Amino acid sequence: MKLWGGRFKEDTDELMDLFNASIDIDSLLYKEDIEGSLAHVQMLEKIGIVNSEECDLIKTGLRDILLDIENGDIEFSISDEDIHMFIERLLIEKIGEVGKKLHTARSRNDQTAVDLRLYVKKEISKIKLLIHELMTSLYKRAKENTEVIMPGYTHLQRAQPIRLSFYLMAYFSMLKRDYIRFDNAYKLMDELPLGAGALAGTSYETDREFLRDILGFEEIMGNALDAVSDRDYVIETSSNIALGMMHLSRIAEEIVIFSSKEFDFFTLSDKYSTGSSIMPQKKNPDAAELIRGKTGSVYGNLLALLVMMKGLPLAYNKDMQEDKKQIFEAIDNFKISLSIMSKMIQTMIFNKTRMFEATQQGFLNATDLADYLVTLGIPFRKSHEIVGSLVAYAIANNLTLEEIALDKYQEFVTEIDQSVYDILAIENCVESKKSMGSTNMISTLEMLGNAYNWLEENR
Amino acid sequence: MKLWGGRFKEDTDELMDLFNASIDIDSLLYKEDIEGSLAHVQMLEKIGIVNSEECDLIKTGLRDILLDIENGDIEFSISDEDIHMFIERLLIEKIGEVGKKLHTARSRNDQTAVDLRLYVKKEISKIKLLIHELMTSLYKRAKENTEVIMPGYTHLQRAQPIRLSFYLMAYFSMLKRDYIRFDNAYKLMDELPLGAGALAGTSYETDREFLRDILGFEEIMGNALDAVSDRDYVIETSSNIALGMMHLSRIAEEIVIFSSKEFDFFTLSDKYSTGSSIMPQKKNPDAAELIRGKTGSVYGNLLALLVMMKGLPLAYNKDMQEDKKQIFEAIDNFKISLSIMSKMIQTMIFNKTRMFEATQQGFLNATDLADYLVTLGIPFRKSHEIVGSLVAYAIANNLTLEEIALDKYQEFVTEIDQSVYDILAIENCVESKKSMGSTNMISTLEMLGNAYNWLEENR
Amino acid sequence: MKLWGGRFKEDTDELMDLFNASIDIDSLLYKEDIEGSLAHVQMLEKIGIVNSEECDLIKTGLRDILLDIENGDIEFSISDEDIHMFIERLLIEKIGEVGKKLHTARSRNDQTAVDLRLYVKKEISKIKLLIHELMTSLYKRAKENTEVIMPGYTHLQRAQPIRLSFYLMAYFSMLKRDYIRFDNAYKLMDELPLGAGALAGTSYETDREFLRDILGFEEIMGNALDAVSDRDYVIETSSNIALGMMHLSRIAEEIVIFSSKEFDFFTLSDKYSTGSSIMPQKKNPDAAELIRGKTGSVYGNLLALLVMMKGLPLAYNKDMQEDKKQIFEAIDNFKISLSIMSKMIQTMIFNKTRMFEATQQGFLNATDLADYLVTLGIPFRKSHEIVGSLVAYAIANNLTLEEIALDKYQEFVTEIDQSVYDILAIENCVESKKSMGSTNMISTLEMLGNAYNWLEENR
Amino acid sequence: MKLWGGRFKEDTDELMDLFNASIDIDSLLYKEDIEGSLAHVQMLEKIGIVNSEECDLIKTGLRDILLDIENGDIEFSISDEDIHMFIERLLIEKIGEVGKKLHTARSRNDQTAVDLRLYVKKEISKIKLLIHELMTSLYKRAKENTEVIMPGYTHLQRAQPIRLSFYLMAYFSMLKRDYIRFDNAYKLMDELPLGAGALAGTSYETDREFLRDILGFEEIMGNALDAVSDRDYVIETSSNIALGMMHLSRIAEEIVIFSSKEFDFFTLSDKYSTGSSIMPQKKNPDAAELIRGKTGSVYGNLLALLVMMKGLPLAYNKDMQEDKKQIFEAIDNFKISLSIMSKMIQTMIFNKTRMFEATQQGFLNATDLADYLVTLGIPFRKSHEIVGSLVAYAIANNLTLEEIALDKYQEFVTEIDQSVYDILAIENCVESKKSMGSTNMISTLEMLGNAYNWLEENR
Repeated sequence: MKLWGGRFKEDTDELMDLFNASIDIDSLLYKEDIEGSLAHVQMLEKIGIVNSEECDLIKTGLRDILLDIENGDIEFSISDEDIHMFIERLLIEKIGEVGKKLHTARSRNDQTAVDLRLYVKKEISKIKLLIHELMTSLYKRAKENTEVIMPGYTHLQRAQPIRLSFYLMAYFSMLKRDYIRFDNAYKLMDELPLGAGALAGTSYETDREFLRDILGFEEIMGNALDAVSDRDYVIETSSNIALGMMHLSRIAEEIVIFSSKEFDFFTLSDKYSTGSSIMPQKKNPDAAELIRGKTGSVYGNLLALLVMMKGLPLAYNKDMQEDKKQIFEAIDNFKISLSIMSKMIQTMIFNKTRMFEATQQGFLNATDLADYLVTLGIPFRKSHEIVGSLVAYAIANNLTLEEIALDKYQEFVTEIDQSVYDILAIENCVESKKSMGSTNMISTLEMLGNAYNWLEENR
Repeated sequence: MKLWGGRFKEDTDELMDLFNASIDIDSLLYKEDIEGSLAHVQMLEKIGIVNSEECDLIKTGLRDILLDIENGDIEFSISDEDIHMFIERLLIEKIGEVGKKLHTARSRNDQTAVDLRLYVKKEISKIKLLIHELMTSLYKRAKENTEVIMPGYTHLQRAQPIRLSFYLMAYFSMLKRDYIRFDNAYKLMDELPLGAGALAGTSYETDREFLRDILGFEEIMGNALDAVSDRDYVIETSSNIALGMMHLSRIAEEIVIFSSKEFDFFTLSDKYSTGSSIMPQKKNPDAAELIRGKTGSVYGNLLALLVMMKGLPLAYNKDMQEDKKQIFEAIDNFKISLSIMSKMIQTMIFNKTRMFEATQQGFLNATDLADYLVTLGIPFRKSHEIVGSLVAYAIANNLTLEEIALDKYQEFVTEIDQSVYDILAIENCVESKKSMGSTNMISTLEMLGNAYNWLEENR
Repeated sequence: MKLWGGRFKEDTDELMDLFNASIDIDSLLYKEDIEGSLAHVQMLEKIGIVNSEECDLIKTGLRDILLDIENGDIEFSISDEDIHMFIERLLIEKIGEVGKKLHTARSRNDQTAVDLRLYVKKEISKIKLLIHELMTSLYKRAKENTEVIMPGYTHLQRAQPIRLSFYLMAYFSMLKRDYIRFDNAYKLMDELPLGAGALAGTSYETDREFLRDILGFEEIMGNALDAVSDRDYVIETSSNIALGMMHLSRIAEEIVIFSSKEFDFFTLSDKYSTGSSIMPQKKNPDAAELIRGKTGSVYGNLLALLVMMKGLPLAYNKDMQEDKKQIFEAIDNFKISLSIMSKMIQTMIFNKTRMFEATQQGFLNATDLADYLVTLGIPFRKSHEIVGSLVAYAIANNLTLEEIALDKYQEFVTEIDQSVYDILAIENCVESKKSMGSTNMISTLEMLGNAYNWLEENR
Repeated sequence: MKLWGGRFKEDTDELMDLFNASIDIDSLLYKEDIEGSLAHVQMLEKIGIVNSEECDLIKTGLRDILLDIENGDIEFSISDEDIHMFIERLLIEKIGEVGKKLHTARSRNDQTAVDLRLYVKKEISKIKLLIHELMTSLYKRAKENTEVIMPGYTHLQRAQPIRLSFYLMAYFSMLKRDYIRFDNAYKLMDELPLGAGALAGTSYETDREFLRDILGFEEIMGNALDAVSDRDYVIETSSNIALGMMHLSRIAEEIVIFSSKEFDFFTLSDKYSTGSSIMPQKKNPDAAELIRGKTGSVYGNLLALLVMMKGLPLAYNKDMQEDKKQIFEAIDNFKISLSIMSKMIQTMIFNKTRMFEATQQGFLNATDLADYLVTLGIPFRKSHEIVGSLVAYAIANNLTLEEIALDKYQEFVTEIDQSVYDILAIENCVESKKSMGSTNMISTLEMLGNAYNWLEENR
């Protein structure tokens, strides 16, 4: 008979047991479940529901179960429905009737809520470390490569020449926001739900402050009904993961494109590439593609959670059982993607010559030419138009802007003089960017300095 | 060394192997992979790439592997990357050099394409059976309950009285469309991709008609590049599942609401209900809630697939590896949801008295009253307004329409006579619906007759 | 010719103009665009790109355009592509050649980035006010109704009796998290992108600190490439809206269910209900249903944004033009939903008698009985089982727990005495909940006190 | 007062009117609404509810309203709630009391169902035409370019050389499936809902066969409850659009990549490109990017619809009002994307020389070399490994496979002879593909022939 089966006349159908059971998923929470129970029993002792002998017995029982699970001595069984019922049954088997006292003054509703919150909090801490690690990889490669110049793109068309460091630091900036976002989510979820009972609180004089302290929460959830109904923290974490994976998908896309034969900017390490079963020459950026592909999966997790919670009346509904599968999967995919991306970044080769060559074709200095005309007194919108015509002329004659003769320039604007060729030199185009946050050397070094400080402060 | 590792100098990183491997998921395809290889090797024999002895050796090898897997004698290993490489390696270990001939004239790209197509086709057949089964359950309960009258709702407000059978047959109609939709998808995907090679076809004179016949496809994919890039069939199946689960979620929602103490229309079997760990009186419609909750999961699968394929250049990209996890999960959730729903429908008790009682309150006969006024020559829009006022009067005086006195009625419309009370009787309101497809007995019996025929024809 | 058309030989196709134009959407940003340009031109003056006369001319021109738009004197035209080009063209028409200087040292990429950020920041402030307003409505109704007792539900089955105030305050808690989440998002997005140029910075010595101060940002975006590529703030806002709408959809669902004839807990004001075109008696909770329905729409906006940004290479890509439609729509739907919900809450009638009656049936006191047995020395898990049997007995004999005779109780547990009937009284079940955050009067008043303080502090 | 307002005491709040109104969206259905009403009134005459004079009056009134709307003489007003109430009010204003008879024997529930079905059916027909048009564009460009050879890619790495025609025909194949999918959806939705009344049928002897014939439906919906609750056809259409846009997003992605300076395979017409506000040289593939970006939007529409319908009890709920906005938007985005894509394909220049050059680097002939070794008696898996080593050797020595000397080849495999160089010639690699559906000339011409026939048959 089920532990809750007192009022039932018929056993549940076998297929129903299979359908209903969540233990294949929530067994992942065994550690947090035992952690929560250890805290709960100590609280029960403190308020006199169990005596100190009973408390010790239960604590020892729980710790034994933890060891058994970690040693692989116990198999989870579907007939136990979920990890909570599983551990409670083991405990009763192990220590007898006393074990039946553990579930006093709590419900599976607040128990599962505290387990999952403990789990997600721990995982966020791991995620923050991995983000920090990837940021460090980006920072290091940026620091090593301040001299490297590459094309900057908009619409995948060459736009303006930029430093590789500046490019890498754009991703650093995105990841920094991700880090803060996880921090914000952590703080908002750092509230104890345990003690809410089924939905209304309990009729025991429980000590929730004691539970909060022992389980390491910052606050106590102030409304029991909310405490057992709330999955905001799961969705917010999943949403932050979706945003983070979106960022990774962008680097991934650029790794794929920049590793193509046509671009040939990046060469991936063999360690993070794979071959083809049929085409012997192939070396494929599988890791980057998989990260890009898993972005869809992670979006799916977020949507599943949002859809699951939509329109659910208070308090607990069984629909919410699906939350764990989704968030576990999202967390796992994000963590491994962060690690792999970090290693790819660390080990890839930047083909500097090829990147610089690529800045020579495509009129990446056209904006600088337009800005030069502004210094000659031509309003920008007009100078833009003149340079447009010069580009059209250059294309028609298969020239670069540097190759247009001075007298030709002067046909367009008489004031143009020899100095135009300095303006047009790609290195100068990079260095001429003077605004704060731009791609010139001073700005780039400043970014790197700030990044170093941030990484140190958040170590 | 990887089977494709000829050109590589460094081994892949361990974390990369873990990240890259799909064997934990695609091992589910072992049967289809061997089925495809058996067909392929026979074709290779037919066109003279392997001789008949080699063919037999390979066939025996493959069948032995199949047996070993089914007997649980082999463990899948992450170092084998995917099920295809795994089986090829086993084959070579088993039968030696000859095994190395199997992969002639094919690529993993067309191999995985044919495996997954074979799998999805089989699963669609199973899904169709399960839909048929649920339709049969609905049909049977409808047939048993033609006399039962319940409130029909719009906006969850009582609207008009209807037959329970008529209500159940609405879901029958939805599921029939689902059935046809899966049938359409099946026909559209019933094309052989094998023989497409990596993307361009192969340089062997392969016999794709032979492959088509032996593997049971209707057509052959006419463009090799499309054959290896196409995942339409996965998305279309996933999309049909999403629609089907949406239908199930609607029944599920109504089961939850109708099983509430307040409605009390349905009583679920103990077999498909569960209890509470803390509240001894609880009997919860968990199965229905889980189906509703899994709808989010299934939507997530569809979106993951759509996102994965968005903007992917031709032909194969590693992103596509994520397709299997999503579709396997969606199929499994849909199949078990169909089964459980079928059993719930079969075993639930309809609380007929309560349902009929519920039609007595809430002015469900107001439309009939309005229609009656039309027969007295009042335009409908005006008669609607008059009945609106009558309802307001009834609410104010805490009456039902049946309880309003005739002289009161005549204050509103002088032509109203005694026959109004016949009009207002709930049973008459049900029977008075005369249009095709309506809730009266004749229409309902006609629906049941059509349903029976359809179920027989599609058995 | 387009303002950017210098290098083009052919005009764009008409259909292309229609497809490409975003002005039908981004015209909403006219105010922010002008605000940004006013700041930009003052900065240009400060660094000597325009003189003070030119600056005044441009400022006057821009302000005139603002007035013209607000007076409805100008029609947006698709041939202008977007609001930025539109205003620049108007300016040049109005003040001549000087107008052509405005676009110096900026690009549409950083211009659109600053416009949208200004807009979203303003809207978040409005959203926070509306959340505060809804929280106030919930608080007020909760404060008025501390004596009202209703059933608390899990799985939509009656679970334990709770106070209406306690129920309403659960939603208050959710909305408080929403408020904080918007606050966090605001702080993270409060960085100036203007000055980033196209992607690399500009070759003018722009003063971004000046721009920051004048436009009211807290920080300056430190990497130009990131500044023009970033849409995190749009997605994070959209994600917060999705979470917030999920909360509203839960209240909405309960309004729909609780307004049904069967529950009859809430009566909506006529002001927020509608009727039927055919059924004269109907009064439908349309507003609640629409909020629930729009939740799907808002989820769709979030998905669209995430999909749009997935795998986009740096920096600006035209795909990103779709961001505005999505976020404008999400914001509008959320704002009006918050307002309507607030008004519904303020005006609805709580049917207190009916709610209390509903606590009398369904064994909502069973947990209290189990807890009572614990005080008699029975371990909880065992007492749960006993009460399960008592409930089964009561159902079989059509009794409530209060109606079971004492000697019958003593057959189950001999120690049970007369005091059991006190335990079972519903009011006592509510008051007996002693834990922090529970439904008893003291806890509820504490919640209300905290709520009041929070509302005051965040006014 | 609202037309349904008989029982209401208070008017709806102004904000509620704004929130509730759908007329800003569903006014798009004015034509279908009038079409449906014209059919309905003729049916009412046929069964004697209105006489022939009344019928003529109503018909004339409706046709006048149609003209007025099409001439822009009437403004839709939010106070009219929806297009149905709007037209009914106008009719009553125009022709007096007789107009009040039109709504006899129908409800807004079946009225809106028939309107939307008529609309979606028409739009599907238009979509099929546009798909046919795009297929024709692909076919024509493929037919003109059978001689053009380009690299085929997997993982965006050069894989094997293919014909441009073969590449274009891969998209043709995808679109053909889209076409069939819309056809299937059309057939499944081609059922008349009108006559279902509010949910239960009507008490008039309506003639639904007459309605079916006059409105051009194939079947009649057999269950009234299903008829008013069903939005399957909206979701299925939206889902087909999502799949179709996914296909377009793939071509779009390749257009963006292939138009980059680095690839330089395609040159877009100026007509479908745009420039930059700051960088005078830019020519951007905006149209392709927008299609890619709108794919997210269209996915969002699908999700919104699925979420909206999830868990909705029967029959009509106000949530369903949101369906129109979503499907209208998806249809519009898909139609314009198909048109623009067709025009881009028609007008783009294929840079043949550049494409062929690209096949010379990247070992695209490695598979052919491996296949050649198979003909020398080496099992494929081994020959794959040997070629892998040869590629590694070539990379190390900066050679192509064609440039490796014969004696070097013979160090790897002694049997290799001079004929290897023929094998390696790119044109031969293309032509050597012999399997059905491959890239060689004969297969390609066959594809083109089949395509021509299909286009003709489906004209």
